[in-house]
Amino acid sequence: MTPVLAFHFDFISPFGYFASLRIEDLAARHGRSVEWHPMLLGVSVMKVMGLKPLLDTPLKGPYTERDVLRYAREHSVPMLRQPRDAVMNPLTCGRALAWVNRHQPQRAAEVVHAIYGAYWGRGLDLSTPGSLVPVVGEEIAQAAASDEAAALLRAEVDAALQAGVFGSPTVVVDGEPFWGIDKFEQIDRWLTRGGW
Amino acid sequence: MTPVLAFHFDFISPFGYFASLRIEDLAARHGRSVEWHPMLLGVSVMKVMGLKPLLDTPLKGPYTERDVLRYAREHSVPMLRQPRDAVMNPLTCGRALAWVNRHQPQRAAEVVHAIYGAYWGRGLDLSTPGSLVPVVGEEIAQAAASDEAAALLRAEVDAALQAGVFGSPTVVVDGEPFWGIDKFEQIDRWLTRGGW
Repeated sequence: MTPVLAFHFDFISPFGYFASLRIEDLAARHGRSVEWHPMLLGVSVMKVMGLKPLLDTPLKGPYTERDVLRYAREHSVPMLRQPRDAVMNPLTCGRALAWVNRHQPQRAAEVVHAIYGAYWGRGLDLSTPGSLVPVVGEEIAQAAASDEAAALLRAEVDAALQAGVFGSPTVVVDGEPFWGIDKFEQIDRWLTRGGW
Repeated sequence: MTPVLAFHFDFISPFGYFASLRIEDLAARHGRSVEWHPMLLGVSVMKVMGLKPLLDTPLKGPYTERDVLRYAREHSVPMLRQPRDAVMNPLTCGRALAWVNRHQPQRAAEVVHAIYGAYWGRGLDLSTPGSLVPVVGEEIAQAAASDEAAALLRAEVDAALQAGVFGSPTVVVDGEPFWGIDKFEQIDRWLTRGGW
């Protein structure tokens, strides 16, 4: 069986978006495949860690907005600047992916890229199943509205917390968590050396 | 006048320690000198941002301890593992450096390396002026106990907040803040290209 990189992210996370554009290349360089795991910062950051949302945090919020634009510019990532008061509710997107992971896992990468591209690249609101139809198709959009999808997302979120995942993006390599797009080079070295 | 890199750090920050070992090399590669600025996470994180201490934050605390050890191992940095309940009060060290910045700025680098090496490398507690004597000498240790040093540190902390600094380490390049040791490669590219 091909070893994996477990890639955890929240669809509202711009650095999760950036990482989604690089994770397959990182995995391929080391003969691994990617697992695409939706998580919810609203659960990990606010409920479990007891912190406020990043953009509402003094100093760190403005810094993060700057850091995001800097990254997008350096890496030429297509991106619409999102208004701070319009952070999308990511539940529908997370449920769609959780359902895909269970029922059509071979489509997970395609679905992630479609959702991230539509939200961060084109600025579409994807908070309802109806809004997902043109992005991921009728079947997955309808499935996102199901109780099953909601339960599958809860299971994903619980599993992520169990694995120590709290931020987006986080890559878990054979049980070792690496948080942040800034860790991609370290993951690369880690995989090359087999730990250290 | 030589352009500078403004390097902000808290002495209790392990990533500040790691960054202190690389900042001069980064600056020298770009014909810059280093300004060594003490800051206090207890003020920025707890008072201004309203967050709890990093190591007391669920999920993030244990991750950070792991991340620190991983960095130290990869970069072969001499380091004693600090017990979590023994985080040093950094006021005395910060005051010593603030006083040095005003009165003996040419010794700032030496003082930072001496303090960081003693605390993170050898595990010494440096929370009192007396404990600083063998590390930075009698004159600076005594000065650290002065009202002037306390006022100078307050001014440093205020100036750091004004510059948007909230974490340790932060490097401010011509007004542009970069937070975290993981940003050193990006700073390098930024300096090479003159922004982007």
